[in-house]
Amino acid sequence: MRRKLRMGMVGGGGGFIGRVHRMAAALDNEIELVCGVFSSLPERSAEAGAELFLPADRVYSSVEEMFRREAVLAAGERMDFVSIAVPNYLHASIALAALEAGFHVICEKPMATSVADARRMVEAVHRAGRLFCLMHNYSGYPMVKEARSRALAGELGQIRKVVVEYPQGWMAGRFASAGVKNRTWKIDPELAGGSCCVADIGTHAHQLAEYATGLRITDVCADLSCFIDFKSLEDDANMLVRFDNGARGILYASQISTGEANAIRLRVYGSKSGIEWFQEDPNHLVVKWPDRPREILKAGAGNIDLHEATRKACRIPHGHPEGFIEAFANLYREFAGALRRVLEDGASPVEAGGDYPRVEDGLRGLAFIRAALDSHRSDVKWTPVEV
Amino acid sequence: MRRKLRMGMVGGGGGFIGRVHRMAAALDNEIELVCGVFSSLPERSAEAGAELFLPADRVYSSVEEMFRREAVLAAGERMDFVSIAVPNYLHASIALAALEAGFHVICEKPMATSVADARRMVEAVHRAGRLFCLMHNYSGYPMVKEARSRALAGELGQIRKVVVEYPQGWMAGRFASAGVKNRTWKIDPELAGGSCCVADIGTHAHQLAEYATGLRITDVCADLSCFIDFKSLEDDANMLVRFDNGARGILYASQISTGEANAIRLRVYGSKSGIEWFQEDPNHLVVKWPDRPREILKAGAGNIDLHEATRKACRIPHGHPEGFIEAFANLYREFAGALRRVLEDGASPVEAGGDYPRVEDGLRGLAFIRAALDSHRSDVKWTPVEV
Amino acid sequence: MRRKLRMGMVGGGGGFIGRVHRMAAALDNEIELVCGVFSSLPERSAEAGAELFLPADRVYSSVEEMFRREAVLAAGERMDFVSIAVPNYLHASIALAALEAGFHVICEKPMATSVADARRMVEAVHRAGRLFCLMHNYSGYPMVKEARSRALAGELGQIRKVVVEYPQGWMAGRFASAGVKNRTWKIDPELAGGSCCVADIGTHAHQLAEYATGLRITDVCADLSCFIDFKSLEDDANMLVRFDNGARGILYASQISTGEANAIRLRVYGSKSGIEWFQEDPNHLVVKWPDRPREILKAGAGNIDLHEATRKACRIPHGHPEGFIEAFANLYREFAGALRRVLEDGASPVEAGGDYPRVEDGLRGLAFIRAALDSHRSDVKWTPVEV
Amino acid sequence: MRRKLRMGMVGGGGGFIGRVHRMAAALDNEIELVCGVFSSLPERSAEAGAELFLPADRVYSSVEEMFRREAVLAAGERMDFVSIAVPNYLHASIALAALEAGFHVICEKPMATSVADARRMVEAVHRAGRLFCLMHNYSGYPMVKEARSRALAGELGQIRKVVVEYPQGWMAGRFASAGVKNRTWKIDPELAGGSCCVADIGTHAHQLAEYATGLRITDVCADLSCFIDFKSLEDDANMLVRFDNGARGILYASQISTGEANAIRLRVYGSKSGIEWFQEDPNHLVVKWPDRPREILKAGAGNIDLHEATRKACRIPHGHPEGFIEAFANLYREFAGALRRVLEDGASPVEAGGDYPRVEDGLRGLAFIRAALDSHRSDVKWTPVEV
Repeated sequence: MRRKLRMGMVGGGGGFIGRVHRMAAALDNEIELVCGVFSSLPERSAEAGAELFLPADRVYSSVEEMFRREAVLAAGERMDFVSIAVPNYLHASIALAALEAGFHVICEKPMATSVADARRMVEAVHRAGRLFCLMHNYSGYPMVKEARSRALAGELGQIRKVVVEYPQGWMAGRFASAGVKNRTWKIDPELAGGSCCVADIGTHAHQLAEYATGLRITDVCADLSCFIDFKSLEDDANMLVRFDNGARGILYASQISTGEANAIRLRVYGSKSGIEWFQEDPNHLVVKWPDRPREILKAGAGNIDLHEATRKACRIPHGHPEGFIEAFANLYREFAGALRRVLEDGASPVEAGGDYPRVEDGLRGLAFIRAALDSHRSDVKWTPVEV
Repeated sequence: MRRKLRMGMVGGGGGFIGRVHRMAAALDNEIELVCGVFSSLPERSAEAGAELFLPADRVYSSVEEMFRREAVLAAGERMDFVSIAVPNYLHASIALAALEAGFHVICEKPMATSVADARRMVEAVHRAGRLFCLMHNYSGYPMVKEARSRALAGELGQIRKVVVEYPQGWMAGRFASAGVKNRTWKIDPELAGGSCCVADIGTHAHQLAEYATGLRITDVCADLSCFIDFKSLEDDANMLVRFDNGARGILYASQISTGEANAIRLRVYGSKSGIEWFQEDPNHLVVKWPDRPREILKAGAGNIDLHEATRKACRIPHGHPEGFIEAFANLYREFAGALRRVLEDGASPVEAGGDYPRVEDGLRGLAFIRAALDSHRSDVKWTPVEV
Repeated sequence: MRRKLRMGMVGGGGGFIGRVHRMAAALDNEIELVCGVFSSLPERSAEAGAELFLPADRVYSSVEEMFRREAVLAAGERMDFVSIAVPNYLHASIALAALEAGFHVICEKPMATSVADARRMVEAVHRAGRLFCLMHNYSGYPMVKEARSRALAGELGQIRKVVVEYPQGWMAGRFASAGVKNRTWKIDPELAGGSCCVADIGTHAHQLAEYATGLRITDVCADLSCFIDFKSLEDDANMLVRFDNGARGILYASQISTGEANAIRLRVYGSKSGIEWFQEDPNHLVVKWPDRPREILKAGAGNIDLHEATRKACRIPHGHPEGFIEAFANLYREFAGALRRVLEDGASPVEAGGDYPRVEDGLRGLAFIRAALDSHRSDVKWTPVEV
Repeated sequence: MRRKLRMGMVGGGGGFIGRVHRMAAALDNEIELVCGVFSSLPERSAEAGAELFLPADRVYSSVEEMFRREAVLAAGERMDFVSIAVPNYLHASIALAALEAGFHVICEKPMATSVADARRMVEAVHRAGRLFCLMHNYSGYPMVKEARSRALAGELGQIRKVVVEYPQGWMAGRFASAGVKNRTWKIDPELAGGSCCVADIGTHAHQLAEYATGLRITDVCADLSCFIDFKSLEDDANMLVRFDNGARGILYASQISTGEANAIRLRVYGSKSGIEWFQEDPNHLVVKWPDRPREILKAGAGNIDLHEATRKACRIPHGHPEGFIEAFANLYREFAGALRRVLEDGASPVEAGGDYPRVEDGLRGLAFIRAALDSHRSDVKWTPVEV
């Protein structure tokens, strides 16, 4: 019998990203929020739950309580999966507990603070036979899917060069002025896992480049900096990278690029054509040809000049912009589709398919962070990215 | 006791706009869809309701049935308001019936096919003491609200010139090729209310210009054309307009502007500054100054350089694009806020406030359509827009 | 025997446009400045001539003196043509005198201040058998030529709609602040010929639209305004226009569009494709298709995707921008080519050919100004443009 | 007595860059071309000279002949300076011969094919007491000067990050298809000086970054590639760079970035603001602020919001685009101004001043090429740039 899928939530009582998870989950009318622990403070969790119109007995004080009590609810009530939207250092333990308790998982990125933890999570997912979606939301944008489809179909020819960048400027503005009073876990070496800029946004650039091209980054040469000096973790990262097909590239991430917001941009050049995508204008893909005019492709559910995966990822006709929340929702939707195939058709996680980032992508992300940090400390030019 | 608001729906079983209504209503977790009649074909309505996970007894075969049966449900179950997303010629009768039955109403635009019907709706809304929201979604975009706030605060100085345009190209593409087989109610003189291009998108341009400036269009000089000739209603409309403060302007709408999607754009020039907004890049507002550099304002919940109404209309920080669905949802959210003040605090419709288009705006739209049609048929230069 | 063509100049001792004429004439090494009267003040003229390294005996105190004395110089010394860059009200008399004296003419626009004078100039050009180039420089841009080539080759299909606009903002800035102290001939009803905004920049929009499409504007419906009120001529002009093939359009020009510089923009929509060109980004032409991605064409001498006339109008490879001076120089170059054919091959003016605006285009411009003024004063919707 | 400066030319009989030199030199009416050797083939040189309207006795068959015969002409006839626009491997010997013969020099970049030759040129310039202008034309653009003025005035605060890129795509198009038949000196290891992409366009990026910021690149980490494999020199170069003030950066140049033309772009981020400039839209400079809207500065001779050096580099009012040739001409103009101060006022080269690249900048460019090549061959991360 078809029904809405039931989501529980960890975190998201403050900050904006938890709310984005809820909006994304709600958008396509496939998922309902049924329970959660919204804060480590029980009172705050209860308040948040009430604001969300949840019954008080499905708002929990701790993750342990939630997993224990949800696990014993009737099949027709129990949450199907949990969305984890908490600081990085909590991802691994909560996800492991959720898998242990038999729940499917959607998890924020980076999924852990060490390669070792990430490896444990990969094993746990496979052992539990559950679905795991890593929230690399930029890969949910329709025109990123168009880029990927074109790359995989050979329309770019042999890919030779990839330039991916994610400049932000927030640390150069009010953050810097506020000085040492800034107390976010993102700049705490312990809680953030030894990396700020690379872990927070460099991993987005890494995943976007690999997703859109179908290639893997094999080697890194990194130059990290810490310009805002009342903290110790890097706020700027410049890297040369090499790909498994011989392509060369540049990857950079920055939190001190004054005046930039979320200017993640991807350029890929192949022997047949080049492409360019910019997150702040997400509904267009520029296609560059050798000896004829460049083309501006436009997202749109009915655009016959787009690949099928792209059209499927659009909700409305071209010219009506979709944005960040819809991209986010595309990951939820793909995950939900797979989960239905598991729950309704008895598919295995592999059979269930779905176009969303997996736990293995999370491991690749952690390996990338480690390689970047190692490279920075090294005098040798190239450091391999080893999973 | 706080609870989700309960929405019923008329239409939306096919086409994309019904789905946009549902996504917009769901986005902010304030509204739940509880019932509907999704098609004039009972079987199709039932199917659509099932796909939406509605219980069979809340999916109706006709509008009459829905209003009759919902009206007698217990207060804790009954729908609070109805969303009407059907062809133009049905808006008036359904909205009147809903008001008669005591429900609040959200209605697609144009809200009727004649000025006379529109006047009846204005009266009915006031008689019923219910809320009525006209779905002029473009006024839901945050940067349109920024434009309005700046205009009302005098930051543009005396407004002198307004250029608003809405070019689309769909009629020049596959539509034209398909020829007389095209059977949409939009080109049927009877069902569309005697106007195609002006009624469908010219009214958006009209409402956008008036909303963003706080001015009223008083006179129109229109040149309408019908280029795709297997039909009879206009597919292109060029107009000179005059405003109640003495400002002059241009308003045009077109369905034969080959290669355009939903390129609605607004430019306003005042004695102190000018502004420009473009729907296909909705998160920016260009501000033009006489003797200093132009500025690019960016939407974002936390941007201190924006007016409060703008920030309130943003869900996420700057640099993460919001789009059409979020703009739509802003109207739902403002309507929902007003409805809560009515239901929870006993506010009157006037006291309830809320930043969403009213039934009077719908009447103004119909008057504008009539003036455009009249002007086209006249040899006299100016035709007044009379409500 | 091949030699450089010899140019004389009237005006250009102050202001920027005279200097643009000289730069444009010099750019392609085909023309040398040999004499001139650069100011109505003999002393100022002499100074300007010295700054230009001209021998003192070729710098004149009056137009009469220049034409008289140049006419009797030896064939190997005498100027071949004169460039006229003075206020509008002087164009006709100087051009008529130059033709009378046997010189070819390049003249700024609008070429006269009345239709009657313009007619006299047409007759004089034909009677004299001399070349006459009207400096409508925007038609010199390569991508405007691409637009024209595509239109004439039928690549746009049947042209249905033309939107051409020329917003400037200078009157809303320091000009307005300076108030009545502003004493430019452009706002003097007598000297400007009864029109400011239409004569000064509306004629550019008019000529651009006709040149790029190959069509003629037959009817105008104009709404003119004067917002800056210490003067009397119009500073804003909104018009509906109709073309000789049945196409409809909008033409507007404005000097009070705060914050705009020289934002002349052309959009043409045909049954097969649409095009868009913007003077402030002149090296691109956007081509819009019904059901495939839009294309961005780029100017460049070697671009095989451009028409021949476009490539010929480019001096350098694509990606290296050319600008206003080069567009200007393209008119000089085309004029110079024709003049060589006259001087070296004995071609008649008609046989000499050349892609530059003629005296007849100037007459059309004056007729357009008159029709706009007449229309504004009339209550009837349409006023014909009669040459 | 004031007169035009007299220019001789070496090269420029074919290709486009020689013609650009002539157009740039002619633009401001300060310089006249008086002689040249336009090709290594005497017949072709004579033809080119005739096409340029030069007297036959000032068109030479060899550089030696030109320098020898011009040197003995009367002071009122003799060329003042020579412009060298030939393949890289000829720059040094010709420039040295010109200096030896007492002529001032304008030279294309890179000015030599080895650091040793570049050092010899530096010495020769100082020994000869002559002016030497290296044609790094991108530093001639007005908005690049605005960037520099803002950087030097401290308006960016402490500069932290510089991203400069120069992607071209020509080698991925017809060049690649033509295969081994491609015989340009640029890909000949001997003639090009051991580097193709870095020498040809990487040096432009290097000079632009240093000019616009006032900083010096001290260390390089380079990854060079050769994708088009019928040749041996690099066609793609990715580099991490470090600056003398502690700023970090990325510099890349590419000839295989399919579909790119001359997309040289500079982004600089400081503690107070960031700037962005793009050569294919050269008349704008984007200024990015921490907590207020970004600004779009526009080139224009009269724009009071620009620094003086910027305004001086503009020939016309804002909104009328200037381009590549005008930027080129700005270097000629600055050189001409300095030369006048030498010739007319007896100023020394140092006293003569002028805003144009010097011979020392050329030496820095060669040192940069060598460091990039050395770095690529090294396993150590950082290679110093040593002059």
